[in-house]
Amino acid sequence: MVTQMRKPLSVLNQSINSHVIVELKARREYRGVLDGYDPHMNLVLKNAEELVNGESVRKMDVAIVRGDNVIYISP
Amino acid sequence: MVTQMRKPLSVLNQSINSHVIVELKARREYRGVLDGYDPHMNLVLKNAEELVNGESVRKMDVAIVRGDNVIYISP
Amino acid sequence: MVTQMRKPLSVLNQSINSHVIVELKARREYRGVLDGYDPHMNLVLKNAEELVNGESVRKMDVAIVRGDNVIYISP
Amino acid sequence: MVTQMRKPLSVLNQSINSHVIVELKARREYRGVLDGYDPHMNLVLKNAEELVNGESVRKMDVAIVRGDNVIYISP
Amino acid sequence: MVTQMRKPLSVLNQSINSHVIVELKARREYRGVLDGYDPHMNLVLKNAEELVNGESVRKMDVAIVRGDNVIYISP
Amino acid sequence: MVTQMRKPLSVLNQSINSHVIVELKARREYRGVLDGYDPHMNLVLKNAEELVNGESVRKMDVAIVRGDNVIYISP
Amino acid sequence: MVTQMRKPLSVLNQSINSHVIVELKARREYRGVLDGYDPHMNLVLKNAEELVNGESVRKMDVAIVRGDNVIYISP
Repeated sequence: MVTQMRKPLSVLNQSINSHVIVELKARREYRGVLDGYDPHMNLVLKNAEELVNGESVRKMDVAIVRGDNVIYISP
Repeated sequence: MVTQMRKPLSVLNQSINSHVIVELKARREYRGVLDGYDPHMNLVLKNAEELVNGESVRKMDVAIVRGDNVIYISP
Repeated sequence: MVTQMRKPLSVLNQSINSHVIVELKARREYRGVLDGYDPHMNLVLKNAEELVNGESVRKMDVAIVRGDNVIYISP
Repeated sequence: MVTQMRKPLSVLNQSINSHVIVELKARREYRGVLDGYDPHMNLVLKNAEELVNGESVRKMDVAIVRGDNVIYISP
Repeated sequence: MVTQMRKPLSVLNQSINSHVIVELKARREYRGVLDGYDPHMNLVLKNAEELVNGESVRKMDVAIVRGDNVIYISP
Repeated sequence: MVTQMRKPLSVLNQSINSHVIVELKARREYRGVLDGYDPHMNLVLKNAEELVNGESVRKMDVAIVRGDNVIYISP
Repeated sequence: MVTQMRKPLSVLNQSINSHVIVELKARREYRGVLDGYDPHMNLVLKNAEELVNGESVRKMDVAIVRGDNVIYISP
């Protein structure tokens, strides 16, 4: 019997061009449209917004977010 | 003599489609249905809920949780 | 001359089905029956109990404990 | 079906000779012209400026910034 | 000219069955008889004692100490 | 079209025998003449000076600085 | 043109049997005669002394210092 599952990277792949919430360490949060990723979970976000403790602190056309600091990604 | 054991990843595999509790560093906890994983213990959770210090702070249809921060997973 | 020694993973192997104490970073402790492990020292514990600062905070039928956070394991 | 995406390193590549904002851990920020990078996200910045808590603390003709500490890069 | 030196792991090897002091991060110290090790500096200690801030907090017949946390080992 | 860029290690290579400022984590700074490096960004500095919070705390003929702790290097 | 440089490990090699100062994270310092090393910068020190915040806290015939924690080594 083969258990059916969805691999983390394939869920990321299905989320290309969708809005995602990216929670990082130290209470940082990014929101934007997922434009790309790599196997280290480095991400490219379009129309990105950075929030610290829930408050918007910066808007960016494009942001490359390093996978190292990711806690979770929610499509 | 071969000692019988259950490998961590095979226990994860048997937990696909079951409810799991995922404890992360910094007193974060996630609960949801395990939808997938990879060898780094990156996880896909469905119907996920994030708890900080025991209080529900966010509900998510899907969350990709990075394995790096995991302390334990309890099926 | 060959020095006789016991490799860490072979001591783990001999501890399968025995009670173990697992001390993690940040004063967390787990106790349970060792059900499995892998070369990263990820562990499967049965009938596990989590203690924080010496106080029992949770009981779990099964827990997959990530090796990253392990300080020591005592069979 | 192939999902179209932009890989993090290819976005970096397209940012060569452009101004970038580099946010590091511990509230450090670097601004400058991206002059090069490698797969670890180590960066070369020209006409770089270091900001700590938003205040300019040093100007440098050239700075090699280690990728380890990067949180995000915004072209 | 070949400089004569003693590799760290070969000093560990010569310390099998000897008393060692193992200093870990966060002011934890272990003392015991070295029973084994691996290339990650994971250690097996027999008749081990754990000290925190210089005070004995636990005695163990056997302890597998993870190499990650080691600051130094003194035979 | 090939984007022209300068790789981080090749900028280091061009800085051999030049004065460099090396900023490490925890507000440590080293200044000296770059005498060598390796791909991990471990560095050899000649006529090196260590500064903590901007104050000179030690002078050294030679220092091998571990790349792990580097935040940036400015030639 | 080949730039002449001294690789970090070859400087360590030339320091065998010399006195070295080893600065670790968390303001720990070790002094002793370098007896060996490996590519991870794990070190063997003879006639070693541990200093915390500049005060001698322990003397050891031999100490194996884990490279992970090294900030710099000064021959």
